[in-house]
Amino acid sequence: MSKGKVLLVLFKGGQHAIEQKKLLGCAENELGIRKFVEENGYELVTTTDKDGPDSLVEKEIEEAEIVITTPFFPAYITRERIEKAKNLKLCITAGVGSDHIDLNAANEKKLTVAEVTGSNVVSVAEHALMTILNLVRNYPSAHEIALKGEWDIAAAARDEYDIEGKVVGTVGAGRIGYRILERLVAFNPKKLYYFDYQELPQSAVDKINQASKLFNGVDNLLERVESLEDMVSKCDVVTINCPLHEKTKGLFDKKLISHMKDGAWLVNTARGAICNAEDVNEAVKSGKLLGYGGDVWYPQPPGPNHPWLDLTRPNGFSGNAMTQHISGCSLDSELRYSLGTKSILESYFTKKFDYRPQDLIVIDGDYATKAYGERNKK
Amino acid sequence: MSKGKVLLVLFKGGQHAIEQKKLLGCAENELGIRKFVEENGYELVTTTDKDGPDSLVEKEIEEAEIVITTPFFPAYITRERIEKAKNLKLCITAGVGSDHIDLNAANEKKLTVAEVTGSNVVSVAEHALMTILNLVRNYPSAHEIALKGEWDIAAAARDEYDIEGKVVGTVGAGRIGYRILERLVAFNPKKLYYFDYQELPQSAVDKINQASKLFNGVDNLLERVESLEDMVSKCDVVTINCPLHEKTKGLFDKKLISHMKDGAWLVNTARGAICNAEDVNEAVKSGKLLGYGGDVWYPQPPGPNHPWLDLTRPNGFSGNAMTQHISGCSLDSELRYSLGTKSILESYFTKKFDYRPQDLIVIDGDYATKAYGERNKK
Repeated sequence: MSKGKVLLVLFKGGQHAIEQKKLLGCAENELGIRKFVEENGYELVTTTDKDGPDSLVEKEIEEAEIVITTPFFPAYITRERIEKAKNLKLCITAGVGSDHIDLNAANEKKLTVAEVTGSNVVSVAEHALMTILNLVRNYPSAHEIALKGEWDIAAAARDEYDIEGKVVGTVGAGRIGYRILERLVAFNPKKLYYFDYQELPQSAVDKINQASKLFNGVDNLLERVESLEDMVSKCDVVTINCPLHEKTKGLFDKKLISHMKDGAWLVNTARGAICNAEDVNEAVKSGKLLGYGGDVWYPQPPGPNHPWLDLTRPNGFSGNAMTQHISGCSLDSELRYSLGTKSILESYFTKKFDYRPQDLIVIDGDYATKAYGERNKK
Repeated sequence: MSKGKVLLVLFKGGQHAIEQKKLLGCAENELGIRKFVEENGYELVTTTDKDGPDSLVEKEIEEAEIVITTPFFPAYITRERIEKAKNLKLCITAGVGSDHIDLNAANEKKLTVAEVTGSNVVSVAEHALMTILNLVRNYPSAHEIALKGEWDIAAAARDEYDIEGKVVGTVGAGRIGYRILERLVAFNPKKLYYFDYQELPQSAVDKINQASKLFNGVDNLLERVESLEDMVSKCDVVTINCPLHEKTKGLFDKKLISHMKDGAWLVNTARGAICNAEDVNEAVKSGKLLGYGGDVWYPQPPGPNHPWLDLTRPNGFSGNAMTQHISGCSLDSELRYSLGTKSILESYFTKKFDYRPQDLIVIDGDYATKAYGERNKK
C-alpha cells in the first residue's frame, strides 16, 4: 500500500511528447518525477482531465495528499474542491503564480501552497520584451502583410516605431518586472518607470542607472511613480508584471486605460484577469491603444469568442500580439520547474519541510509572501 | 528654368499617407523636401513607377542630376541606367545600403553615391532582436495557434527556448551588428561571438564585457572568431549584419548552413541575397534549422513563389519570422533619413560638398567606405 497519493495535472503532449523529450511539462513526461515519487512510497496519478464534476481531478482530489498543477493549463483548485480533499496537505504549482488555487480556502485548511519561484522569471521577462518589440515595431501587421506576398511598405510602416526614445513603465517591479527593466536599458529608452507597493533596493536602481550610463551616457533612467494613473499617463509602453489578486483583478479597465497616452501599447504577461478583456479590445478597436499583447487569458482556455482573438485596429490591421500562456514553459523553463517541483517534494517526503522560503505562498494558515499578502492590507 | 532635376523614388503611401503624416518616406510626403528643393532652384520629380523600360524612372533618369532612392522599395540603378543618365552627378540612398546601385558603374562615371549612415541602425538592431526573440521563443507557431483559439500548449512549447544560456554570433560587427550585441548582453547569453574583417576597438569590447559583469557577473562574454565556419558551428543563433557585395552574395548556402548546429536559428536583417533562398527554406523544411527570419528579400518584392513565403518545419508548424523590408522604416527612422537626405542635398546645392565622411560610399571614382571596398581586397 502506498503512503499516499500525488495528483499531477499537466497539459497533453500527444505526438509532441514523443518527438520532443525535453517537453517535461506534459502529462506523458510527468516532469520526470514518476520514479522519484514511487521510490518514496507514494502513488502518482497523472491526468489532463481537470474540468467539470465528472473529471478525474474532481474524483482523485478526494484522496490526494499532494496536488501538483501549473498556471499554463490550470486545474482550478476551488474552495469546493479543497473542502472535499480530506487528505490534502500540499499544493505545488509547477511554475510561478498560484492564483488558480483558492488561497483563502487553503489558509483555512492550513494547507501548504508552494511554487517554484524564479523558475520562469527569465522566460517571462524575455516574452515581455518580445511582445513589446512586436507591438512597437508593428510585427503583427507587418508579418501578415509579408506572408501575403504583398509589398505594401506604407501599410506596415505607418504604425512602426522604435523603442529607442520611448517611455516604458512596469506595473510591478518584482522578479519579472525588474528583469524586463534590465533588458530594456540597452535599447536606450527615454525613461523607465515602475509602480510597486514596495520600493526597489537602491542597489537595484543603481544597477539600471549604471548600465544606462555605460550604454547611452544617460543617468537617472529609472524612477518610481507613486500613482498608477500618473505612471500610465507618462508611458508609451506599459508592461504588467504583478500578481493577480482581489486588488489587481480588472485593474486595466476603461477608466485606467483612459489615462494612458493615445496610441500607447499595453503588454500583459502576468495574468489575463488583471485586464478587462472587452475594454482592452475596445481600446484597440477605437485606436486609443495601438496594440495589445501577452500570453495570459481569463479564462484559460479562452473559448471561441474571447475579445483578445480580435484586437483589430480602426484601419483594419492587426494590433494583436497574443500567445497562449507559453511564456513560462519554454523547454529551458520546463527543466527548471521540474527540478524545483522535485525539490519541494523532497522537503515534504523527508519530513524536513525545509522549503525555500521564497517558494512558499501559504503555510500554517497564513500568507507567506508579501505580493499576495498585500491584498489584505489597506 | 530650373537648375536641374531631382528624381525621387519612394513607395506609395495611398490612404496611409493621408492618415499618418509621420510617414515621410512615401511618395506623397516626399521626405518633406519639396519646398527645400524648389527653393534651391531645382525641379523635383517624385514617382513610384520604377521598373521596366516604360517606367518613369527609365525616362526621367536621362535628365536627372540627382537620384534619390531607398533600399526598402529599390529602384535598381543599373549600369544601363547609369550609362544613359547624361546629367547624373549624385545618387542618394535615403536610408542605409546602396547595393541596389551598380557601384562599379557609378565609379567609372565618377558619380557620388551617398547614404544616410546611422539613420536606421537602431531600428534594424531592434528588428534583429525582435526576430531573434520571435524565433527562439517560437512566436511564429505560438501566435498562430493562439489565434486559432486552440489551447495546444505542447504544440507551441515543444520548440520554445530562452535566449538566456544560448550562444549568439553576428556576421558583421559594424554599426548594426554591434548594437545587436549591446542589446543582447542583459539577456545573459552563454557567449557572444562576432566575425568581421575588422577587429572591434578594445573599448567596444570592454563595454560589452563591463555590461555583462554588471548584469550577470560574467566577464569575457564577447569574442572574435577568425573563421566563419568555426563561428556558425558554435552558435545557437546566427544574425547577419554585413553589407551585400560580391563576396557575401549567396554566403549562407547549403554548405555553410551544414556547419551550423542542428536546430539553430538564422536571422537576416541585412540583405536577402546574402542567403541562398532555396537552401534556407530546405534547411527549415528538413529540420536542420528551427527557423529563419528577417525582413530582407531578393528580389524585392519577392513575387508569389519566393521560398521564404514558406519556411515550414517538418512538423507542419511555422518557422517563419519574415517581414517585408520595414526594419529601417519605422516612423522614427523615416524622420532621421529624411533629415539626412536634406543635409546631403544641402552640401550639394551649396557646392560646399561637405558631406559627412561616413555617408559617402563612392566618390571621385573610388570606394569611400571600407565595408564595400573590402570586396576588392584579397
